[in-house]
Amino acid sequence: MIVIVKLGGAAITNKKGVCEYSACLDPLLDQVRQAYCDLQAQGHQLILVHGAGSFGHPQAKKYQLKEGWRTSQPGADYLKGFSHIRACVQQLNTTIITQLEQRGVPVLNITPLDYLHARHGQDTPTERFEALVERTSQYLQLGFVPVLHGDAVLDDMRGCTILSGDVILYHLSKWLPVARCVFLTDVEGIYKADPKLKMVPQSFEILSHISVKDTVEVSTSFTVADVTGGIQGKIQWAKRMVSDCQVDVMICRWGTKEALDMMTLQNTFTDKMTRFSLF
Amino acid sequence: MIVIVKLGGAAITNKKGVCEYSACLDPLLDQVRQAYCDLQAQGHQLILVHGAGSFGHPQAKKYQLKEGWRTSQPGADYLKGFSHIRACVQQLNTTIITQLEQRGVPVLNITPLDYLHARHGQDTPTERFEALVERTSQYLQLGFVPVLHGDAVLDDMRGCTILSGDVILYHLSKWLPVARCVFLTDVEGIYKADPKLKMVPQSFEILSHISVKDTVEVSTSFTVADVTGGIQGKIQWAKRMVSDCQVDVMICRWGTKEALDMMTLQNTFTDKMTRFSLF
Repeated sequence: MIVIVKLGGAAITNKKGVCEYSACLDPLLDQVRQAYCDLQAQGHQLILVHGAGSFGHPQAKKYQLKEGWRTSQPGADYLKGFSHIRACVQQLNTTIITQLEQRGVPVLNITPLDYLHARHGQDTPTERFEALVERTSQYLQLGFVPVLHGDAVLDDMRGCTILSGDVILYHLSKWLPVARCVFLTDVEGIYKADPKLKMVPQSFEILSHISVKDTVEVSTSFTVADVTGGIQGKIQWAKRMVSDCQVDVMICRWGTKEALDMMTLQNTFTDKMTRFSLF
Repeated sequence: MIVIVKLGGAAITNKKGVCEYSACLDPLLDQVRQAYCDLQAQGHQLILVHGAGSFGHPQAKKYQLKEGWRTSQPGADYLKGFSHIRACVQQLNTTIITQLEQRGVPVLNITPLDYLHARHGQDTPTERFEALVERTSQYLQLGFVPVLHGDAVLDDMRGCTILSGDVILYHLSKWLPVARCVFLTDVEGIYKADPKLKMVPQSFEILSHISVKDTVEVSTSFTVADVTGGIQGKIQWAKRMVSDCQVDVMICRWGTKEALDMMTLQNTFTDKMTRFSLF
């Protein structure tokens, strides 16, 4: 069975800065290594997808890269912006790849820009992801751990756009025999209200279970740049993964027992995490 | 017109070390930026291809990656070796991409592993390079400076192999309207004998002109690991580029007037560089 672990931008970077790593990157990657070893011992496979956090969102916002250059020829500012965001994301990816490889996890990165050409951002049809999925599957068969990420890509209608790691997760789940997608983040799950809004009582309560039929409206404080839809976007893609791809989806805080249990296909669900299901 | 500049592994890294940058990387990249600005002002285009130097050769040798795993399933040592060399090359590439982007050169990297599947190493037929060449051409048309590099790739017959940046240069020259290929290295050109063999008188003389019909035998000291054929391999590919692709090929020391002149399509040939020609 295949487990996809999404390393959220909020967990691996400091989203309040620009191109700053999370102070907790080391123990987080230690836990990912542990999960890989456990899965491998059981004959299961692992795919990693990471977000861009402060190596992507502020840059995308500054240069309006999600909307794209919308002309056949990008101006000097777009050339600079696209080259800049690619260099930033590559820095983050290189760090993650290198640190996991040094921990003995046989990672190989797959750069979305190199494999897919988007059509109007998130509306990009599934068949456009075919080459990306095929390469992922090939690396898995050889015994590697494929590492993908949210990326700036070329786009038919916009010139360029930003594809969230969550969208990539969805298409991988649609095509591959994925059993579970685990989102590792810096909070325990989805709160009834944004925990940064400390005066709201529900901001301390976690929604431990969300059915795809539930309407979830979480008020958010939007204190950091997020060009991929923030928590509402995440909920929407998690629900689509559950209903369209028949995979388990859960959100956990990295470093917890819940995170390791979920990554290693245990079913020890608790109320310190959020689990999505069909009913 | 298109100019391809090869940033040699000996110029950008310390080939005597392992994963060590050249102490001269900054001024070298300053000169590349200067060449880009001059070319752009004249309406010409630039492609960069870099070697792997100490971020690739020692690793390839250690894990025998050029010969490949030769089976359908790589063993644990190959998984580790392939993942390791990819991480090392990506570190070097990320540094070059980032430093050029910070200098205002709109670079976009193209990872050979993502675009081509080799067949028996250097025997890989030209059509296998089609996707790589197409993407290079697309980036040029958009106004970017494509950056490629020697890489560890998958191979039909060997499982994996090492493709030298020189081989990639050859195939780019074969398909694209390239006017000139300039090899930037840490010596002034090809010496009659290896300049590291200081007791041999010819080791101080540069071959300023090599015709494709000339038989050039350069004695070398082989003091550093080079899995891509060393200076003899370089001469062979340079000759093939001149005769098969009708491009000018020259080897210069980075930082010299010769290097800038050659990169910017001047014809001020001197005896402090090596030029390859048909006759």
